[in-house]
Amino acid sequence: MAVYTDVSAEDLTRFLSAYDTGELLSYKGIAEGVENSNFLVHTGSGNFILTLYEKRVAEGDLPFFLGLMEHLAARGITCPQPVKNRQGGVLGRIAGRPAAVVTFLDGLWIRRPNPGHCAAVGEALARLHLAGADFKQKRANALSIESWRPLYEHAKARGDRVRQGLCSEIATELDALEKSWPRQLPQGVIHADLFPDNVFFLGDRLSGLIDFYFACTDTLAYDVAVCLNAWCFETDHSYNVTKGRSLLNAYGKVRALSPAERSALPVLARGAAMRFLLTRLVDWLAVPDGALVRPKDPLEYYRKLRFHQPVKSVQDYGVGA
Amino acid sequence: MAVYTDVSAEDLTRFLSAYDTGELLSYKGIAEGVENSNFLVHTGSGNFILTLYEKRVAEGDLPFFLGLMEHLAARGITCPQPVKNRQGGVLGRIAGRPAAVVTFLDGLWIRRPNPGHCAAVGEALARLHLAGADFKQKRANALSIESWRPLYEHAKARGDRVRQGLCSEIATELDALEKSWPRQLPQGVIHADLFPDNVFFLGDRLSGLIDFYFACTDTLAYDVAVCLNAWCFETDHSYNVTKGRSLLNAYGKVRALSPAERSALPVLARGAAMRFLLTRLVDWLAVPDGALVRPKDPLEYYRKLRFHQPVKSVQDYGVGA
Repeated sequence: MAVYTDVSAEDLTRFLSAYDTGELLSYKGIAEGVENSNFLVHTGSGNFILTLYEKRVAEGDLPFFLGLMEHLAARGITCPQPVKNRQGGVLGRIAGRPAAVVTFLDGLWIRRPNPGHCAAVGEALARLHLAGADFKQKRANALSIESWRPLYEHAKARGDRVRQGLCSEIATELDALEKSWPRQLPQGVIHADLFPDNVFFLGDRLSGLIDFYFACTDTLAYDVAVCLNAWCFETDHSYNVTKGRSLLNAYGKVRALSPAERSALPVLARGAAMRFLLTRLVDWLAVPDGALVRPKDPLEYYRKLRFHQPVKSVQDYGVGA
Repeated sequence: MAVYTDVSAEDLTRFLSAYDTGELLSYKGIAEGVENSNFLVHTGSGNFILTLYEKRVAEGDLPFFLGLMEHLAARGITCPQPVKNRQGGVLGRIAGRPAAVVTFLDGLWIRRPNPGHCAAVGEALARLHLAGADFKQKRANALSIESWRPLYEHAKARGDRVRQGLCSEIATELDALEKSWPRQLPQGVIHADLFPDNVFFLGDRLSGLIDFYFACTDTLAYDVAVCLNAWCFETDHSYNVTKGRSLLNAYGKVRALSPAERSALPVLARGAAMRFLLTRLVDWLAVPDGALVRPKDPLEYYRKLRFHQPVKSVQDYGVGA
C-alpha cells in the first residue's frame, strides 16, 4: 500500500486544467502499487487513475511504459490507457513528481486462482506478447539475470538471518543459472510482473491487465515462467499441475512455444524464482525493526526455486515436451 | 492513511450479496481515516464506501454513529448514508470485523481554507447541531475533559521529549480547566472532529460532511471551539481573526450562541486545544523509532493552547461579546 506524496485539491485542479477531463469531483489516495503513489480520481467525464512516479521509477523509462500501454490498448489488450492532455502529451508534473492520468479499469483480482483463471492469464499473456511484437521502443530488463548477482552481494551479509544457509544456496544457484541461462530464445515486450493482483476479472472473464512498470524487452518464455510461479503454486508452496497445464496450454494456443523455449522452461522458472527471491530478500532486509510494514515473504520464492531445481522437462509442468 | 485489514474479492462478493447494490465491479483500499479500514467500492448501482471498524472503535458505539448519519441525512445534512441490507440492517461483518456500506460523496477537502470556507463550515456545523436536536440516542464523549488527566498521566513520563517543560505546562493548564470548565451550557449531538479533511467542497460550495466516528453528546459550543482551532489558524500558528469572525458569524446566523456560550468560548477553545494536544502527544509517543509513519504534530496544538490562554473575551476571536 502506498501513497508517498500528498496531493492537494488545489494542485490537482491546476494539473487537470491541462486535460479535457472536466471538473474535479473527488480523489482518494489508494493503497495500490509499491513503487508509485496512486489516486482514484472522479471527474465530470468519469473515473481515472492518477499516478505520481516516485524515485524508484526512472523518469527516462516513462515514455516506454506509457507508450506501451497506448500501443497495447490500440491492439485490443484491455489495459489502462494514458489520457492525453490538450498538447497531446501524456506526461505532466504534480507535487514535484512526474505524473500521468490513465483510464480506470473495473475488475477484481483473484486471491485463489482456479485452473480457469490460469488459462485466462496464459491466453492474455500470449496476446500481450503478440501485440507487443511491433512496438518500436526498447527497454532493457533492469531485473534480468545480470542484476541478480549484485542483488545477492547486497543481501549476503544479512541474508542468513532469514534462513540459515540461504546465501550459500543462492550463490550455488546463481553459478548454475549464469552458466546455463538461455540467451537465444525469442525476445520481445514482456510484462515481467503479471501476478494475480495485476490481472482483473469480472466473473470468470479476464477484464484487464494493469501495472506495466516492470515491462521491458526480454525473453518471452521468461514471462511465461514468471506467471507459472505466480499463478500455479498453492499456498502450501506445492506446484498445481492442473493449473500449470491450463496456463501453458492456453498460452500455446495463441502463441506456440518452440521446442527450444519448452526445453528452457525449467531453467527460466528457476531464474524467475531467483529474481523474486532476491528482490524480496533485499526489501525484507531494508525494513527497520519495529516498522509497521511487513514486506512479502522471500522464502515463498526460495521454496518455488527448490521445486524447480530437480525438474528436467516441461512435462513435469503438465504439458508435452 | 489506513488499510489495516485485507479484504478479498471473494469475501466482498459474499458480503455484498446481502445488499441490493448490484454486481461488484471494483474496490480499492483508500488512504483515509486513521481508526478504520476504508474501501471505495464500485458496483452496478454506483459508488460506495465500505468501512471495516478496527479495534479502536467500540462495536457498541456503531449503532449511534450509523443511526446519527441516517438521522442527519433525513434532515438535509449532506453526509454519508448507511446502506441497508435486505434485512433492513446497516451493520454486517467481513474479514472478522464489523462493517458498514455508506453512500459515496463527491467533494474535495481544502488544505488552505479562506474566510468563505470558514463561513461555510460554521453554517454547516450549526445546521448539524439543530438537525441533531431530536436524535434520541446518546453517547458520552470518550475524549471529554474527564479523559484528559488519564491521557496526561499516560504521556507524562516521556512527554518532555517532545518539548522541554511541556508536561508541567499541561498539568497547570489541566488544573485550571478542571476548575473553570463550563458544565451548564446547551448540550446535544456534536461532530467533535470537524477538521478540514472531514468537510468536502465542490467549488466554493460545501458539499458534505464525513467521518462521524467521534460524534457524541456534549456541549454544542465546544464543537464550535474545535472548529475555531481547526479552521482559523494559519500554518505559522497565528490566529486569523477574519476567518474566526466568518466562522462564528455564520454559525450564529443559524443557531445563535447564548451570552453564556459566548463568554465560555475562550475556556472551551483552551479545552479543545488540550484534547488534540493530548491525543496527538500519546500517538506521537506510541510510534516506534524508525517507523515510516509520522503522526500529527502535537506542538501545533500546544501553540493554539498558548494563544487562547490570555484571551479574556470572545471579542478577541473577532465577534461581539
